[in-house]
Amino acid sequence: MAVYTEVSDEELGTFLSAYDVGSLRSYKGIAEGVENSNFLLQTDKGSYILTLYEKRVAPQDLPFFLGLMDHLAAKGIACPTPIHGRDGQALRSLAGRPAAMVSFLNGMSPRRILPAHCAGLGRGMAQMHLAAEGFKLTRANSLSLDGWQRLYGETKTLANDVAPGLEGLIEAEVAWLTANWPAAESLPRGIIHADLFPDNVFFLNDKLSGVIDFYFACHDRLAYDLAICLNAWCFEPDGMFNISKARSMLSAYRDVRPITDAELTALPMLARGAALRFLLTRLYDWLNRPEGAWVKPKNPMEYVQKLRFHQSVSGPGAYGLD
Amino acid sequence: MAVYTEVSDEELGTFLSAYDVGSLRSYKGIAEGVENSNFLLQTDKGSYILTLYEKRVAPQDLPFFLGLMDHLAAKGIACPTPIHGRDGQALRSLAGRPAAMVSFLNGMSPRRILPAHCAGLGRGMAQMHLAAEGFKLTRANSLSLDGWQRLYGETKTLANDVAPGLEGLIEAEVAWLTANWPAAESLPRGIIHADLFPDNVFFLNDKLSGVIDFYFACHDRLAYDLAICLNAWCFEPDGMFNISKARSMLSAYRDVRPITDAELTALPMLARGAALRFLLTRLYDWLNRPEGAWVKPKNPMEYVQKLRFHQSVSGPGAYGLD
Repeated sequence: MAVYTEVSDEELGTFLSAYDVGSLRSYKGIAEGVENSNFLLQTDKGSYILTLYEKRVAPQDLPFFLGLMDHLAAKGIACPTPIHGRDGQALRSLAGRPAAMVSFLNGMSPRRILPAHCAGLGRGMAQMHLAAEGFKLTRANSLSLDGWQRLYGETKTLANDVAPGLEGLIEAEVAWLTANWPAAESLPRGIIHADLFPDNVFFLNDKLSGVIDFYFACHDRLAYDLAICLNAWCFEPDGMFNISKARSMLSAYRDVRPITDAELTALPMLARGAALRFLLTRLYDWLNRPEGAWVKPKNPMEYVQKLRFHQSVSGPGAYGLD
Repeated sequence: MAVYTEVSDEELGTFLSAYDVGSLRSYKGIAEGVENSNFLLQTDKGSYILTLYEKRVAPQDLPFFLGLMDHLAAKGIACPTPIHGRDGQALRSLAGRPAAMVSFLNGMSPRRILPAHCAGLGRGMAQMHLAAEGFKLTRANSLSLDGWQRLYGETKTLANDVAPGLEGLIEAEVAWLTANWPAAESLPRGIIHADLFPDNVFFLNDKLSGVIDFYFACHDRLAYDLAICLNAWCFEPDGMFNISKARSMLSAYRDVRPITDAELTALPMLARGAALRFLLTRLYDWLNRPEGAWVKPKNPMEYVQKLRFHQSVSGPGAYGLD
């Protein structure tokens, strides 16, 4: 939610001259995406989003992310389509950062989540999972078990300063998930978005109109995307889990792609893993926010509450499906 | 350069239903304007800027600001035009803040200032000064002598922590300007923009295409707007004053509205006042930045250097005119 890099007029002009996007009419930094600098460009041919990739995106992953968006867009998924220059390239450099331009998507992130949004999300996610089949590049999930263990090690000495007992809670959860996390071959795998928060999903008149921000996409258990969304979409602002929203999402998903029994059974554990993942990255950001930071970090404690909920459920029925 | 207020879907829907702007297609927070929350709205009828007025804009001043934009736009000045609802009102309330929508202007703020930009600025400023004649509402400049004395009082105890000797420098300058500031009737007066920084001026192909952010506009000596722009546009990033840029701006201005001899003579003093004004507000913001601020305050010391330059000049010739 910020612009980290200033682009000079000359640099922008040189960058745009590689594309057939018409002449620039306006250029505004937008408050979208926590990780990168994003600009909305309007030309006489249309609207585009220009992204400068800041430190958290590994440059070697960019061909995967941009290729995936190309692949999904070609399959009819409403996602940003990378704009290719006259040289065929979608990825180039601007102001010392890797940079790319993508098509502009209409729609708005929902501020108040309705069950209709959850249904649209479930349907769209399943379509995306199916459409991603056949994409040739691969990327491991760097924020799965190994990543959690690493983040635990990097946050444990200060975790109790954020909340008493937090270090022990995380230590026990990492240990339990390490012992119980489903083996790679035990659940259907494919490409997941891995960050399908409401900020990254657009709706028009309560219908899903687009999915953005593929910069955590990776290969993992498909149901892990569902587990992330149970955390991100199905809790009320007061912390209560809303089973109707979960049922809407899961039912709509399985209308498009069947959820296997193994996936259903694994859902509470996957949801614990997803809650731990966002707890750990938020805790890390909280502890490592720069002096005089421009961006307010998100409170990690929200995810402690969510983790405790998933620890307490007795089976997938808690999510509205049996 | 931030979005301070979140607007819910319902609130936005209710707000927009008062206007004939078509149906909403997208809605993005934009990094524009330090003081308010700004959103770019795209509908099937066009693009609009929605502004939520945050704490620094006094609600009782909004009819002046919006009325001025209406007045200037009707005279053909390229500025945001307030959008009036079906009830005729341009000003209403959204998310607990006063809010208004204005037309979207094409163009980009120049990142690297060229003499051609300064000439466009001078011409546009003079046209605006002339076009504002006949506007009926009035607003005093709250950041003139009285305001500087007040800001000096509010910053003096901590000024030396920012830079040794800063308090004495400001004290002496406030005293000198209090003794020497031109009497109200001694220079031509009218409505000035009072914040014509490059961020607030748009260009397309090096031609001025619009002026935005009228939220400091007020009645004052017209030449004070020139003095502000000498500070904001005519210094190089290394702190050197660029007399060619000043000459371009002043010459283009006087091609549209003659600069009187009294104005020319007063220019070095007005430029000192303008430098002190931005030194003081930046110093105040620097000292009063909230814990964990989202916005990085601008360094006040840049204006110490500018003030010292204007203190050193022997006459208006230093600005390229005689």
